[in-house]
Amino acid sequence: MSNNMTAQEMTERDMVAARMQTSVQVARVRDYLYGGSEGWKLHEKLVKVVSSDAIFDKSKRPFMTRKERYERAINMTNRLYELQDIHSWSNDETAVALNIIDEEVPMHLHFATFEPVFMDQCGPELRHKYGDLIMNRGIQGCYLQTELGHGTNVGSLETTARYLPETKEFEIHSPTLTSSKWWVGSLGKTSTHGVVQAKLIMPDGRDMGPHLFFVQLRSLEDHTPIPGITLGDIGPKAMGGYCGVDNGFARFDQLRIPRENMLSEYSRVTEDGQYVKPVHPKISYGGVCYIHSELEKGAWVIGKASTVSIRYCTVRRQSNQDNDGLEQQVISYPSVHFRLLPVLSHAYAFILIGRDLKKRLSVFSARLATGDTSTVQEMHIATSMLKILVASMGAQDIETVRRSMGGHGFSEFAALGRYYADWLPVATYEGDNYVLDIQVVRAALKWYRALQASEHPTASSLPPSSAYLRLLLPEFSTITGSTPAWLDPMVSINLLERRAAVMVENRALHEKDPDASMDNRVSRAAAEAYFATKIGALIENLSRSLPPQEVAVGLLALVESGIGDILSFSLLPSADGEDATRGLRMAIKQICAELLPEAIGLTDAFGFTDWELDSALGVFDGNVYEHLWAKAQTEPLNATEVTEGYEASIKPMLQRGQRIVASSKAKL
Amino acid sequence: MSNNMTAQEMTERDMVAARMQTSVQVARVRDYLYGGSEGWKLHEKLVKVVSSDAIFDKSKRPFMTRKERYERAINMTNRLYELQDIHSWSNDETAVALNIIDEEVPMHLHFATFEPVFMDQCGPELRHKYGDLIMNRGIQGCYLQTELGHGTNVGSLETTARYLPETKEFEIHSPTLTSSKWWVGSLGKTSTHGVVQAKLIMPDGRDMGPHLFFVQLRSLEDHTPIPGITLGDIGPKAMGGYCGVDNGFARFDQLRIPRENMLSEYSRVTEDGQYVKPVHPKISYGGVCYIHSELEKGAWVIGKASTVSIRYCTVRRQSNQDNDGLEQQVISYPSVHFRLLPVLSHAYAFILIGRDLKKRLSVFSARLATGDTSTVQEMHIATSMLKILVASMGAQDIETVRRSMGGHGFSEFAALGRYYADWLPVATYEGDNYVLDIQVVRAALKWYRALQASEHPTASSLPPSSAYLRLLLPEFSTITGSTPAWLDPMVSINLLERRAAVMVENRALHEKDPDASMDNRVSRAAAEAYFATKIGALIENLSRSLPPQEVAVGLLALVESGIGDILSFSLLPSADGEDATRGLRMAIKQICAELLPEAIGLTDAFGFTDWELDSALGVFDGNVYEHLWAKAQTEPLNATEVTEGYEASIKPMLQRGQRIVASSKAKL
Repeated sequence: MSNNMTAQEMTERDMVAARMQTSVQVARVRDYLYGGSEGWKLHEKLVKVVSSDAIFDKSKRPFMTRKERYERAINMTNRLYELQDIHSWSNDETAVALNIIDEEVPMHLHFATFEPVFMDQCGPELRHKYGDLIMNRGIQGCYLQTELGHGTNVGSLETTARYLPETKEFEIHSPTLTSSKWWVGSLGKTSTHGVVQAKLIMPDGRDMGPHLFFVQLRSLEDHTPIPGITLGDIGPKAMGGYCGVDNGFARFDQLRIPRENMLSEYSRVTEDGQYVKPVHPKISYGGVCYIHSELEKGAWVIGKASTVSIRYCTVRRQSNQDNDGLEQQVISYPSVHFRLLPVLSHAYAFILIGRDLKKRLSVFSARLATGDTSTVQEMHIATSMLKILVASMGAQDIETVRRSMGGHGFSEFAALGRYYADWLPVATYEGDNYVLDIQVVRAALKWYRALQASEHPTASSLPPSSAYLRLLLPEFSTITGSTPAWLDPMVSINLLERRAAVMVENRALHEKDPDASMDNRVSRAAAEAYFATKIGALIENLSRSLPPQEVAVGLLALVESGIGDILSFSLLPSADGEDATRGLRMAIKQICAELLPEAIGLTDAFGFTDWELDSALGVFDGNVYEHLWAKAQTEPLNATEVTEGYEASIKPMLQRGQRIVASSKAKL
Repeated sequence: MSNNMTAQEMTERDMVAARMQTSVQVARVRDYLYGGSEGWKLHEKLVKVVSSDAIFDKSKRPFMTRKERYERAINMTNRLYELQDIHSWSNDETAVALNIIDEEVPMHLHFATFEPVFMDQCGPELRHKYGDLIMNRGIQGCYLQTELGHGTNVGSLETTARYLPETKEFEIHSPTLTSSKWWVGSLGKTSTHGVVQAKLIMPDGRDMGPHLFFVQLRSLEDHTPIPGITLGDIGPKAMGGYCGVDNGFARFDQLRIPRENMLSEYSRVTEDGQYVKPVHPKISYGGVCYIHSELEKGAWVIGKASTVSIRYCTVRRQSNQDNDGLEQQVISYPSVHFRLLPVLSHAYAFILIGRDLKKRLSVFSARLATGDTSTVQEMHIATSMLKILVASMGAQDIETVRRSMGGHGFSEFAALGRYYADWLPVATYEGDNYVLDIQVVRAALKWYRALQASEHPTASSLPPSSAYLRLLLPEFSTITGSTPAWLDPMVSINLLERRAAVMVENRALHEKDPDASMDNRVSRAAAEAYFATKIGALIENLSRSLPPQEVAVGLLALVESGIGDILSFSLLPSADGEDATRGLRMAIKQICAELLPEAIGLTDAFGFTDWELDSALGVFDGNVYEHLWAKAQTEPLNATEVTEGYEASIKPMLQRGQRIVASSKAKL
């Protein structure tokens, strides 16, 4: 290579060179990530259809108002179902296409929250009447839980559903401002129907707590709101996130609905107003499915962030000169690649764990169908732990790689800001993660106590989500004092499990007086232990296709990010004045350096097209500067040479200043 | 209090009750924060003028396009100078008003980057010709450094300024696409002039490295670009940040400018093409001023974020019931307030340190004026360390408190998302913090080696920014093995200094082979040690006005966030199986509980009006739900009952689904 080349000419060469040096069999890994070559081919086919259709064009998106973004979102959704007709896609294929369109649309919420809740809990009559319509989007639905004054704590919801035996109806009512349903996706301007969480009030005034009711919101004739309901959109979201979705509000003014519209799979009210108790507790299969869809979404968005940042840092050159007299590729700096590579590893881990979870979900659902609820609690805790991780790691990873990209990472055209803003609500909109933290800690303590109480405690008595507690048993208690062999993934996995175990033990010790962050840290430790073991279980499969460092670097980064607790509980040998973590960090440095030549291959294996990434800095050919330049030319401010505000705002300002100077000079 | 009150009615009562219990003398603290009652009165007066002027109205801001936001920004700027005329404000008063308008506007960049660079380096002739015009905004300027292909590494900039002795001109040229100036604030559509960083090329072809040139960009007659320059806006920024600023690009096509337009305070080119070397190196007084303005901006935005979140969490009630049978105030949960209160403490610390820095700046500038450059290096390092901290802590603090607010924190109307997006570029747009990290580490190592090399090393030989290194001297080396008395701020300060000292020592030990994050961690440790000692120096002043916990909680949170390194270097006594950090964390819990009753008083003392915060959740009266409801009604999507896309997009989708169901039923 010659250093007479311009920086721009270098970019494409750098990308070609990076692809030359990778030993990853990109096509093979890609097929693996998509669950086989069939999966990849379907994805590729759908991307082709969608990306060549003008309705899904993204070029004007950065300049649109929210209203335009919403209108684009519903237009895209309608077009998607037209395409389903045209190409005879199955519902599953259409669901894949819906993920490809690269926009959060109201229809996502129909499938992600409304439909599973309805189908789980509606009971046979409502299913018969509305099931087909819902599956075919003849009606569009939403799930109304959160209120202005209350989030996840459903016990405190204020909306009421009073049974009126005289007319055999429920009266849905919002007694206060704070009882207004709020944040409900697809409610604002789109949905025709909804499932409403409301306190069931019996004719004698008894409050039976929250139940679900199927409510028509808008006319199927002309889409006007049903009288008795005030509906609207709650306004834009922070940082432009979820721009295309009409999160909405609803206030009910003594709205009557027929008795049959109570979702009655688990409990119901008879015509004469008797409450029939559920035979067994409600099972949130829908909730677990929802977490799965978030996990999958998170995994792929981390993959996108990682692709964009690794590609850009491969072609961006800055500061120190390398052997050719050129500035070094930014990715060659240890301070950069030690941040980027763990993120790449997280994407792989979450994609594979997500696929594994999907398989387990079908087993789980088959069991539920036979009435076997024995694994409900375990499924809930295991998926909650994964949700905690993907929500927080996803947000942190996207921001980390965005900042690693330097100044251009702050351009809208880099795409990372959009990925971040659209991902953020996962950590909050279903109630913040504190709630999940507490559930995870409670479950961990339950198993810890069971272990304590057992006369012959065994590792096999523990469910997978709490398997790390086995390390508290005498036969597992040895910690070697020697320096850990960091390059062996089992060392990291064991350390993460041990940390979780001693932290749960410590949490039990201080049951009545934990410190303020303890539950959060215990939950995180438990989740990471579980995550690490899941990765461990996947290693054997992976080793055939992936460089072993790809897994190890993610695990080591987990250990590093949790080093405070690891050291605090003396789980690492101390180093006598020397930095006790140096061995760990040097291992990360080494492993990153080894993995570096594979980085481009591993991101290529995600199979993203430029259209899917929609990032000027993440383009496949590495020609980032030309793309950034071209994008800037589309900015509407550039449509006129002299800006429209010139006469009104700039000219008077300049002239005022010039007058002041002229008059003070005249005085001299 | 009765639990028959609605959640909404409770909000105002909760806020009144919180104000009743605070013992902080709000007015006294507020005056202190504003540098005396004069400062506060000026601020109050300017807020009144600005907030009652329709031009500065914010109610439509959340719904505007970027083009509208830009036009609003320049319109506001023009109005501000009209107001200056009307009210005869001084330039200092106008600068305060410019910070109050709550929008990043192009004119900020004129003052923050263009003017100080020009005034520092222009030399007498350019100053005579343009100084008054610049001070009075008769011309509007920008500072063109960053290029598409290069950021902070000015040595690699590609733009050239070739001297042509035959015409006594420089030819400014962009030889490549990547040499296009990029990201330059106020360049896109606003500025008439700029200071351009370009490599000076002598007639014999010698490259003298980067120098500064004063270039007219647009006509003062009609604002059209000067022939030979391609100008434009680079497009929107991530997450909607910096929306009103026209960060721009410029490409020069052999543009001629007169020889006199080289900024020649430090070096120049004679008519016949001889290079006159600088007598002493360039002094970036402007750079230090700029950091001060960022520090101040950061301090107050952390204050805003802290005010909004503490107010909202005071009136929001959720989950567990308290003694009155009401749900608990969210702020009463240790897991919430242990996050919010350190952020409040950071705001205080940065405001006070910013004021201290301002005083030191005038001393510094007076010294410079006499040619005394002895403190330049120390000033650069000390301010760089503060910049590293305020940039990263600011971003993290705003996100932390946003997430502590739960779901509503993700609403645009909460304001936290806007604070975050507008703050983010500070961490990146001047080159990422890696560059500063390396400078800080280099300076620390220099002083460490000087200490090592000295025969009689003394603490007093160290500058304030490296004073922590004294702890490596024998007379400071004792570490007590006893449990730290965490409630004493000196314990935290000493621990943070000791961490920095041993890390610098360790960094020197591994000079050739640091781990990948070492420089980042050493820099952070040094910065936090300096920050902590600055806080320590302010404690005595503070103790008269502020509860002592206000300072202590911020310091303890710093210790906690750096616990990994503190433990790794064995700076805390180990706890023999117990959590070694429990003492620290329980101290934080205790001190937070003690500080909690003062939280509302301490946020009130920032003196923000509802107009300034522009957050439905941060309103003074606590009536958050009504404000959120009212804001939602202003969403343009709610202007029509049936959304405009209904006929085109929603209706066909529903009808398609209904047809499918009807036809499959017909077949049965």
